[in-house]
Amino acid sequence: MYKVGIIGGTGYTGGELARLLCTHPDVEITSMTSRQSSGESVSSVHSFLNGYTNLCFTKTVDYDVDLAFIATPHGAAMKEIPQLMERGIKCIDLSGDYRMHDVQTYRKWYGHDHTDIDNLRKAVYGLPELFRNNIRGANLVANPGCYATAVILVCAPLMKADVVEMDIDIDAKSGTSGAGITPSARTHHAFCGESIIPYEIGTHRHTPEIEMVLKAFSHNDPKITFVPHLLPIIRGILSTCYMRLKKNLTKEDIQSIYEDQYGKEKFIHITNEASIRAVVGSNHVQISFRIIDKKIVAFGVIDNLVKGASGQAIQNMNLMLGLNESSGLDLPGLGV
Amino acid sequence: MYKVGIIGGTGYTGGELARLLCTHPDVEITSMTSRQSSGESVSSVHSFLNGYTNLCFTKTVDYDVDLAFIATPHGAAMKEIPQLMERGIKCIDLSGDYRMHDVQTYRKWYGHDHTDIDNLRKAVYGLPELFRNNIRGANLVANPGCYATAVILVCAPLMKADVVEMDIDIDAKSGTSGAGITPSARTHHAFCGESIIPYEIGTHRHTPEIEMVLKAFSHNDPKITFVPHLLPIIRGILSTCYMRLKKNLTKEDIQSIYEDQYGKEKFIHITNEASIRAVVGSNHVQISFRIIDKKIVAFGVIDNLVKGASGQAIQNMNLMLGLNESSGLDLPGLGV
Amino acid sequence: MYKVGIIGGTGYTGGELARLLCTHPDVEITSMTSRQSSGESVSSVHSFLNGYTNLCFTKTVDYDVDLAFIATPHGAAMKEIPQLMERGIKCIDLSGDYRMHDVQTYRKWYGHDHTDIDNLRKAVYGLPELFRNNIRGANLVANPGCYATAVILVCAPLMKADVVEMDIDIDAKSGTSGAGITPSARTHHAFCGESIIPYEIGTHRHTPEIEMVLKAFSHNDPKITFVPHLLPIIRGILSTCYMRLKKNLTKEDIQSIYEDQYGKEKFIHITNEASIRAVVGSNHVQISFRIIDKKIVAFGVIDNLVKGASGQAIQNMNLMLGLNESSGLDLPGLGV
Amino acid sequence: MYKVGIIGGTGYTGGELARLLCTHPDVEITSMTSRQSSGESVSSVHSFLNGYTNLCFTKTVDYDVDLAFIATPHGAAMKEIPQLMERGIKCIDLSGDYRMHDVQTYRKWYGHDHTDIDNLRKAVYGLPELFRNNIRGANLVANPGCYATAVILVCAPLMKADVVEMDIDIDAKSGTSGAGITPSARTHHAFCGESIIPYEIGTHRHTPEIEMVLKAFSHNDPKITFVPHLLPIIRGILSTCYMRLKKNLTKEDIQSIYEDQYGKEKFIHITNEASIRAVVGSNHVQISFRIIDKKIVAFGVIDNLVKGASGQAIQNMNLMLGLNESSGLDLPGLGV
Repeated sequence: MYKVGIIGGTGYTGGELARLLCTHPDVEITSMTSRQSSGESVSSVHSFLNGYTNLCFTKTVDYDVDLAFIATPHGAAMKEIPQLMERGIKCIDLSGDYRMHDVQTYRKWYGHDHTDIDNLRKAVYGLPELFRNNIRGANLVANPGCYATAVILVCAPLMKADVVEMDIDIDAKSGTSGAGITPSARTHHAFCGESIIPYEIGTHRHTPEIEMVLKAFSHNDPKITFVPHLLPIIRGILSTCYMRLKKNLTKEDIQSIYEDQYGKEKFIHITNEASIRAVVGSNHVQISFRIIDKKIVAFGVIDNLVKGASGQAIQNMNLMLGLNESSGLDLPGLGV
Repeated sequence: MYKVGIIGGTGYTGGELARLLCTHPDVEITSMTSRQSSGESVSSVHSFLNGYTNLCFTKTVDYDVDLAFIATPHGAAMKEIPQLMERGIKCIDLSGDYRMHDVQTYRKWYGHDHTDIDNLRKAVYGLPELFRNNIRGANLVANPGCYATAVILVCAPLMKADVVEMDIDIDAKSGTSGAGITPSARTHHAFCGESIIPYEIGTHRHTPEIEMVLKAFSHNDPKITFVPHLLPIIRGILSTCYMRLKKNLTKEDIQSIYEDQYGKEKFIHITNEASIRAVVGSNHVQISFRIIDKKIVAFGVIDNLVKGASGQAIQNMNLMLGLNESSGLDLPGLGV
Repeated sequence: MYKVGIIGGTGYTGGELARLLCTHPDVEITSMTSRQSSGESVSSVHSFLNGYTNLCFTKTVDYDVDLAFIATPHGAAMKEIPQLMERGIKCIDLSGDYRMHDVQTYRKWYGHDHTDIDNLRKAVYGLPELFRNNIRGANLVANPGCYATAVILVCAPLMKADVVEMDIDIDAKSGTSGAGITPSARTHHAFCGESIIPYEIGTHRHTPEIEMVLKAFSHNDPKITFVPHLLPIIRGILSTCYMRLKKNLTKEDIQSIYEDQYGKEKFIHITNEASIRAVVGSNHVQISFRIIDKKIVAFGVIDNLVKGASGQAIQNMNLMLGLNESSGLDLPGLGV
Repeated sequence: MYKVGIIGGTGYTGGELARLLCTHPDVEITSMTSRQSSGESVSSVHSFLNGYTNLCFTKTVDYDVDLAFIATPHGAAMKEIPQLMERGIKCIDLSGDYRMHDVQTYRKWYGHDHTDIDNLRKAVYGLPELFRNNIRGANLVANPGCYATAVILVCAPLMKADVVEMDIDIDAKSGTSGAGITPSARTHHAFCGESIIPYEIGTHRHTPEIEMVLKAFSHNDPKITFVPHLLPIIRGILSTCYMRLKKNLTKEDIQSIYEDQYGKEKFIHITNEASIRAVVGSNHVQISFRIIDKKIVAFGVIDNLVKGASGQAIQNMNLMLGLNESSGLDLPGLGV
């Protein structure tokens, strides 16, 4: 059994890591930190873990682990990671701190300088279906953003096949758990509960992340117009991606492109109708599409807390530790 | 045109007062105060008022009004009201400060002493269908709690007719707007959005309020067990009231009791199935009931922000100013 | 008082017409038809109308009216309207039967021939803010589709000002009341209640309607890619419209274009953040926008049952009968 | 590997059985029947099973199984079960057909005669925490109703300890998945999506079921007043149970009673605040309670499709087949 630690265990992604890891056959959570809940038992804070863990939250990081998940807010991770890395602990960062390869882009979108440029250079972008081999050998993995996951998996195969123009409109919709556990005006039920709220229009940090990764699959500079919307649901993301086809292609042509890319993937399914409910609670992704004249509208759905965060982090962990990639994650979505 | 002021205009009940008053034929809102938004235009804070008001929020209270609504949190109202009352301004308090006639009960349930006992003695409980005549002559009206409205209107006629036992179980459910505009852990969408959450079980402040009012309709001491639940909807309260019949009564007997009490009321309807959606957005109340052996289960529904707060306050205002009681309120609920 | 009839009164748009008309100062509903509920009182079917009408549903149409609203499903309206028109009754059709000027387009998108071509030629498209003068003199008005309203009002001013390209992506989201009162697999709560569901992708009938109307404001053929999504809310539409700017324009430029078009409109507001809740229950529209490089993303929100259907129909009625255009509709949205 | 069949596989409980069984280590689903979808692949109907099953739905029952789950509507099960039983196939009926021991009670509440009285006499009520030993040896198990599970587990220990009166008020709330997959007026999103709807008040079939089971734990005849409410959520039941204490008891006394009964149970947890979200997706139960003077208000939460239906059925299967009772079910709830 590998020992793993969770740094920042009281939030949604920390709790979700614990939910998924507590039945994982090959690893054991041996420590979870929390500033506000240190000393409390994990199952008193996350009552769904009743019967699954006897851990208490600690204030200080336990370095006696093989791998650490960092589930702290942006900016905090790059303070923890250097200390973990120099002790030889493999790290998976669920924040945005190590996603941008370019420090200028980081500064522009995150509003401050990066303070751990050495490790930033080593960080591998943790989207297993596209960067599996790099992740296997990595010591530091930057876990992708939830929206980024739901968009990149949809668009990258079409970019790679060179069948779409660079100018893409992305209309993304996310459940409220994506905003984290801290109450705010936007996630106040009476505000968002019977509405859909566009926000950070053209200014969301996943924009450069998506462009950076898609560029790796293209001969050109992708330019996405990205508009996230807050949905009155808890879990789930739907990305509706509007792309212009370079030439006339049939449904079968596109189907082939996706099947070539994802046909053997455990967690990605090309379906006729991508359904959020079909993937909720699971690490699965569904992609569907329609051709309308010279455009393709493609849809991606994920559970933002699983494939969009903690599940994908565990998938990365499995690769980094040489375990079966789907270990602990091989469960269907709720469906209903 | 009467001039009215709203003290505490940025919250939900303040905004709802403005929504209903901006089309009222006989009164004009001439001032709205707000601590955090003073100086801002009302319609920039409440964008639904676009085109309906040119007011800006002020910090200080404008005493050049005929009547003031106090829509501040509990505890703040009893600081404002003495100053308004001594200037001869009629007051309607939407907080709980003037509801309890008994200072001991107030201290016990609100956790601090009452600082305006003189006015407390003069305050009239503002449930028009039961205390209409008192309200007409009042200078200070304590607007009932939202839950209290939804429970008292259901139970009082049966108490008055002396057909039910004193021991009553009340299972109440409220939309999240009842919790106000300030974000909190309980009203965070990802926490409450797909759940129903019992809270303040046996400790909610509307408990003594309900008992106090029902006692006025009974020869005995009513004892209610009151359990509020937070619903994942925005507007609306359903109270499910479990009462024990003193003798066998038919559906027709109960129907008569309610019709005798409410048959001529504009806003109260005895229906076969009380529906929250039928009253949402309006000042209407629906009451329905079923007899099950020796018990009666009766249901009351209201819009917590209208009949449960601001609409009822306007109904009280109409009575206090000698206007048509339903003026500005005579609109059906949304239905869908 | 004008006499008006509602043909098809049990559905959501029929009930909404009654909700809004029952307090209208200048007209009186004198008949409502219903196949399945004929003989029943209207307020037993629509309990929110309790106290507002004593009508019973009839099976046969009452021709003793000045104006009739036809709120039946597509295909049924063109059977009723010839008989109303030949009796000189003004008609407002809330279905899609008279929206397409071109019979070929009608056949292609509605799947059958149009059987009332004479009246089709006379029908005026009932979007008052854009076709007010035509509506004033019309005897037959085709009330716009809900999505079409939320899209056309956003895009038309920019088309007219010739600042955007013809190729537009429209990501539209609607509450479930837009699907009508008949239960279906898609509107089953356990299916749609925690999800967002794209449907009729590229095949929705509002597509040619939008293109037809936008073409009237452009020198060219607009080509919209229209993807509707079902939201887990009851009332409200948000349309997110992705347009390419022909040249660099500032926020102020766009603001001017909208203000020039809508500055004097009662029901249209250019806001910083368009909010569904701000317009729910009302006939108001909010439009907001952001410029992102060479694109503009513009948002429109309406209540699909009011400005998207019955409210707009009443606005049309007011124009056709020479009444004040906002009569009976001059109320703010719920806000919360 | 045991072979199991699912009769009635297109509904929610059928799909949920497949969801949970497809990763069960000791059994294999070898057949699923469906009237309307026979011939179709299971994963095309239940897309969440993509990658987890290659089965197609069949019209006829496959008798080459060790155990069959009957997930058909009430009335249909008692036609299938005699044929399965005479072939020596163990049966778990998820409908209400075999829950009532008394044929008169069955007729009264289900509206028709029971046609398989022989097997009815042999049927064991499948609530493992209370009837584990009987289930182990059973060939036919009647899986409890969802509401019944959420109520009986809460009340039985207090009945058994003889600390509460027989007269109990139960206010139960269920998500819409409890109503099954067939669309209806009540589960139409625009009807139920922003409301809470009491239904079958005093007439719900789980009433006699609860009374029958509680009687087995009492020296007297329990009399419950049971009011179910439809909640605008998909999964989850909360039962709020109002009981009168026979004598003064402390929180610790009640805690002891529950701990004595459930302290060693894998799936039952006595918590300070029972949370639906903590158990959603899982077979877990949370129970919490408060003492208010001479009453106890106790709460039970379950996922109606898991512990309230398919999960409990699998728990029963594990017992009947001699497997580890929690096999395939040992997962925490979603939490968020």
